[in-house]
Amino acid sequence: MHEVRIGVIGTGVMGTDHARKLAGSIPGARLTALQDFDAARAANLARDLDVLALPQAEDLIAHPEVDAVLVCSPDGSHAALGLQAIAAGKPVMIEKPLAAERAEAEAILRAEMAAGRRLVQVGYMRRFDPGYTEMKQTLTSGRIGAALFLHCRHRNAVSPDYLTSDLIIASTAGHEFDAARFLLGEEIAAATVISPRASRHAPERQPQFIVLESVSGTVVDIEAFTDARYGYDVQAELVGEDGTVALRPGPPTSIRIQAQDGTIVPQDWRARFADAYRIQFERWISSILTGAPNEGATAWDGYRAMLVIDAALAAWRAGARVAVEQPERPDFYR
Amino acid sequence: MHEVRIGVIGTGVMGTDHARKLAGSIPGARLTALQDFDAARAANLARDLDVLALPQAEDLIAHPEVDAVLVCSPDGSHAALGLQAIAAGKPVMIEKPLAAERAEAEAILRAEMAAGRRLVQVGYMRRFDPGYTEMKQTLTSGRIGAALFLHCRHRNAVSPDYLTSDLIIASTAGHEFDAARFLLGEEIAAATVISPRASRHAPERQPQFIVLESVSGTVVDIEAFTDARYGYDVQAELVGEDGTVALRPGPPTSIRIQAQDGTIVPQDWRARFADAYRIQFERWISSILTGAPNEGATAWDGYRAMLVIDAALAAWRAGARVAVEQPERPDFYR
Amino acid sequence: MHEVRIGVIGTGVMGTDHARKLAGSIPGARLTALQDFDAARAANLARDLDVLALPQAEDLIAHPEVDAVLVCSPDGSHAALGLQAIAAGKPVMIEKPLAAERAEAEAILRAEMAAGRRLVQVGYMRRFDPGYTEMKQTLTSGRIGAALFLHCRHRNAVSPDYLTSDLIIASTAGHEFDAARFLLGEEIAAATVISPRASRHAPERQPQFIVLESVSGTVVDIEAFTDARYGYDVQAELVGEDGTVALRPGPPTSIRIQAQDGTIVPQDWRARFADAYRIQFERWISSILTGAPNEGATAWDGYRAMLVIDAALAAWRAGARVAVEQPERPDFYR
Amino acid sequence: MHEVRIGVIGTGVMGTDHARKLAGSIPGARLTALQDFDAARAANLARDLDVLALPQAEDLIAHPEVDAVLVCSPDGSHAALGLQAIAAGKPVMIEKPLAAERAEAEAILRAEMAAGRRLVQVGYMRRFDPGYTEMKQTLTSGRIGAALFLHCRHRNAVSPDYLTSDLIIASTAGHEFDAARFLLGEEIAAATVISPRASRHAPERQPQFIVLESVSGTVVDIEAFTDARYGYDVQAELVGEDGTVALRPGPPTSIRIQAQDGTIVPQDWRARFADAYRIQFERWISSILTGAPNEGATAWDGYRAMLVIDAALAAWRAGARVAVEQPERPDFYR
Repeated sequence: MHEVRIGVIGTGVMGTDHARKLAGSIPGARLTALQDFDAARAANLARDLDVLALPQAEDLIAHPEVDAVLVCSPDGSHAALGLQAIAAGKPVMIEKPLAAERAEAEAILRAEMAAGRRLVQVGYMRRFDPGYTEMKQTLTSGRIGAALFLHCRHRNAVSPDYLTSDLIIASTAGHEFDAARFLLGEEIAAATVISPRASRHAPERQPQFIVLESVSGTVVDIEAFTDARYGYDVQAELVGEDGTVALRPGPPTSIRIQAQDGTIVPQDWRARFADAYRIQFERWISSILTGAPNEGATAWDGYRAMLVIDAALAAWRAGARVAVEQPERPDFYR
Repeated sequence: MHEVRIGVIGTGVMGTDHARKLAGSIPGARLTALQDFDAARAANLARDLDVLALPQAEDLIAHPEVDAVLVCSPDGSHAALGLQAIAAGKPVMIEKPLAAERAEAEAILRAEMAAGRRLVQVGYMRRFDPGYTEMKQTLTSGRIGAALFLHCRHRNAVSPDYLTSDLIIASTAGHEFDAARFLLGEEIAAATVISPRASRHAPERQPQFIVLESVSGTVVDIEAFTDARYGYDVQAELVGEDGTVALRPGPPTSIRIQAQDGTIVPQDWRARFADAYRIQFERWISSILTGAPNEGATAWDGYRAMLVIDAALAAWRAGARVAVEQPERPDFYR
Repeated sequence: MHEVRIGVIGTGVMGTDHARKLAGSIPGARLTALQDFDAARAANLARDLDVLALPQAEDLIAHPEVDAVLVCSPDGSHAALGLQAIAAGKPVMIEKPLAAERAEAEAILRAEMAAGRRLVQVGYMRRFDPGYTEMKQTLTSGRIGAALFLHCRHRNAVSPDYLTSDLIIASTAGHEFDAARFLLGEEIAAATVISPRASRHAPERQPQFIVLESVSGTVVDIEAFTDARYGYDVQAELVGEDGTVALRPGPPTSIRIQAQDGTIVPQDWRARFADAYRIQFERWISSILTGAPNEGATAWDGYRAMLVIDAALAAWRAGARVAVEQPERPDFYR
Repeated sequence: MHEVRIGVIGTGVMGTDHARKLAGSIPGARLTALQDFDAARAANLARDLDVLALPQAEDLIAHPEVDAVLVCSPDGSHAALGLQAIAAGKPVMIEKPLAAERAEAEAILRAEMAAGRRLVQVGYMRRFDPGYTEMKQTLTSGRIGAALFLHCRHRNAVSPDYLTSDLIIASTAGHEFDAARFLLGEEIAAATVISPRASRHAPERQPQFIVLESVSGTVVDIEAFTDARYGYDVQAELVGEDGTVALRPGPPTSIRIQAQDGTIVPQDWRARFADAYRIQFERWISSILTGAPNEGATAWDGYRAMLVIDAALAAWRAGARVAVEQPERPDFYR
């Protein structure tokens, strides 16, 4: 195989963005089919990109011109589509989260193990961001010693009305939970949540401050603030025994104007993580073509992120520290 | 009065540094007397600076050529010396903490109120640091909206053996507690402490991660890491509803050498807070000469910092959130 | 055509790097053939990449499985190979410079005009660097007003022995001359050169300081320092009537270690301009497939850079300001 | 003497600012007298600061309650006042320039040498700026090797109408000429001037680009741009054989607001050089009290800066490189 033919399920903002990338700029990828519950939306994009529009997700997964599937549909559909792709023996990348419910995630793990090969990747794209990658390399190189603290900031400029205080933990902070596991290379043992007051710009929801403890004793704190107004800003600093390494988000120019000297802050994730999404797709296609694994999040990683979310939600509701469940990792996922 | 004649009690590292500053570089100040429990140490410095060496702290406080007293002696002596200065009607600056025990601090409050005028200042010098001052101005200007988060980092390069995990809370983090009250302009309501594992460079003590909640609902997190090796580094970021403001510690040059582009990190507090100490003394002398108050920490501020320390220690021992006691502020301290 | 089959002439350090990129990571590109004057070197790489090794450059240019040619051979061969590619009607990208001699460059212009379509692109990859692109966008957006100054720094960590003071102008600074024309969108009118003393690390050659004046009156100064030791460092600042915009080279992380806080400086051009080279190839392939022009340097741009080099060399030899020749731009290159 | 009684001549913007500083915040200084050609202006300030207002500059210089004189009056009066202070045997600090005409400056040198002790300091305050001081220390420490380039930027936000293209060289750039001599520790040998076009905000004058060559072969380039709009910005980068050191102007906080992350740029010299002026006065007073010399600019330094100005003006008019006259330094000024 010299080329991977991709079908995309879900053509909302993110699915459309991804489909356009896969249609032209990822070596070895060829977009062949689209599907969306809004058939007209899918058809319009398909016409634009000169690919098939298929009526049902099942049709797309089964289609002979689809070698691999990208799932960008609503969270509630992730698990069922993942299971169908596994049944069809086709690689599937599922936008986070892996599943909406824990039992669904466990079903995916069982199905993938039964299939005998890893077909599922979860779209935690930060694992491919040049900044996160370099942070992890700096830590594993030993230059800064063992990790003691990891400080994380996740700020959106503005957020939709449906985002509630618990969704800030369950959805917004999910990227941070996976990033912490990825950077530290170990599991999260416990969560504590402390909520500041709401911003006047979003009085109906509270920002969240989540403190995780890793199994070996690293403390991870996460500011999750979805109404930061000034921009979309993801920061992280890893503090080790001998030094620190921090993200340095990337505008390639600085500007001095109107009494300020600095850099432009992007307004959403597209500019901030453009490289991460591109590299995630390149590595996914490459690993499908060569059979070699990549650094992407596995179904197991997706499942573990869900367990951290569960503990953080429980800690928030209880106002107390809650331990994260620690199921044993199957050999299949080692 | 055109000049304030100062006596310094305690001529250890900090007392010596302060005495030298007061002997020459603070307008309106004249150093006249020194005292230390190690009489020879005081005598040597006194000879060098051409001032009196007095045998007992009582002698210094009572001496007719001493208008105001600076207390740099061990913590256990602070309260007694403060009470003597109040009794003598002389302004006294006490290096932090105000007192070793809570009952002592309360005795100082009662004595000062009985004296009918504010004589005590606690040496929380960050209140005069240009960075902290500018942060507070930015917040009170309204430019970044109301405060939601305050992220604090306190890192020492190395620390003495006697420093224990509880002293990191009780002593090291004390500056952060006062700085949080100063920046936010309100009291601290509760404390939670989570400890990461110890660094291999100081296996006998754990760094600390302390999360405070202000009365109005701002979350303050403090990394207190006393063995950070690479340097002395105090950072803070205040996150408001409309923007953020952060300390930008101040080397006035940057350097590119040996494959790195950046700034030199100082190795101790002297370079980092030289301006803060200088300005603190200038304002103290000026307020003695003019009778006008300054931004310095009062005895009440010193007392409130001690209550936060008590709560944080209790939270650490209990592994749970502990409320900070909230005594009513006497009118005298409004 | 859905794919462009590429042949690479010259498999030295840069040619090898480019060949590996074209063999796998550029959408729409397929590497098919290599040639080098050292036949064994080409054969080894060809075996590794599973492509043809051809004995002569002529063979490669004429080969039916080569749709487009990349020239990475020594400067003296550029013009002849460019002319052959034009004669064959095949797109050719020539690593800078366009030609070794002015008459050769003019022959290319004539040949390309006679062919009636633009086939030549010169590998001034900075035109695709995200930093330079953003600088140009900032200028053309009008946000900083009209350009008055452009400050450029070109520093190599170390350089080969054959690099002489005049080659620093003729070869090293060539990238800067094209970048100035690209950023300002206009021609260079005059050059002045002032040479500082040599570094003790390279006593046989002098760094150069070159001051250009654009036709409309922007002053461009270029520090060309090929023995800067600490790293490979390309900087630029554009000063306009209302503000400035500067390159902010891109390590995605910062590090605090051993008393320094900053970023790692790369040691050569590969890390610094990896994105620029990748994007240059992507746009080249895309423009071959679609027929649409791109921002790359044309033969005319390559010729104009040579005229600036000639003036700068003359200015250096004369110790005086020398005007740059201003031939009229043929309509073909508008 | 425990105190230096100061008289200030000239109470315009700068003289007023200086008088207020000397009236309260400089240890060992006491402001006693003011004089201005506008007697009412001087009288008002004198009343406010509770000092004498004297009718004539001669009266002030001769007054028994004036130990030292600060000259802030118009440039044309500098030399005459300097000579009178020397005749009175009183230390005098003259705001730059030392004199309006070269012959006047030479008269001051002769008078000071005849007096047999150094009485004159020129107010090139950057010699006391923490950034310039640290740059010089970095160079003299040997850490970056010998200097090869010095890049200087001088930008004002806005400028008065009377400022002409030649005054940008003669007055604005004067600080840069002294700073270059101070940092490099050697004389300037030649000057070349290249002028970009004027900004639309000040079409009647051109910014200037001045290239100096030091005696040992360091190239110094100076952007002098007096209408930069966005703020007052003084930058410098010293490039050595092994590394570089640059000014990092000092806001002690950074801010993220309205899609920008950076620091506030001051609008004039007061905030930018507040420390430099304060330290300059402290060292001046201290050297008067102790008799020890300081790093301040001597009359000789003031004279040499004038010779560089003369050469730069000549170079600008001639459009060619002009050598700086190199009079021999008298032993008195070694």
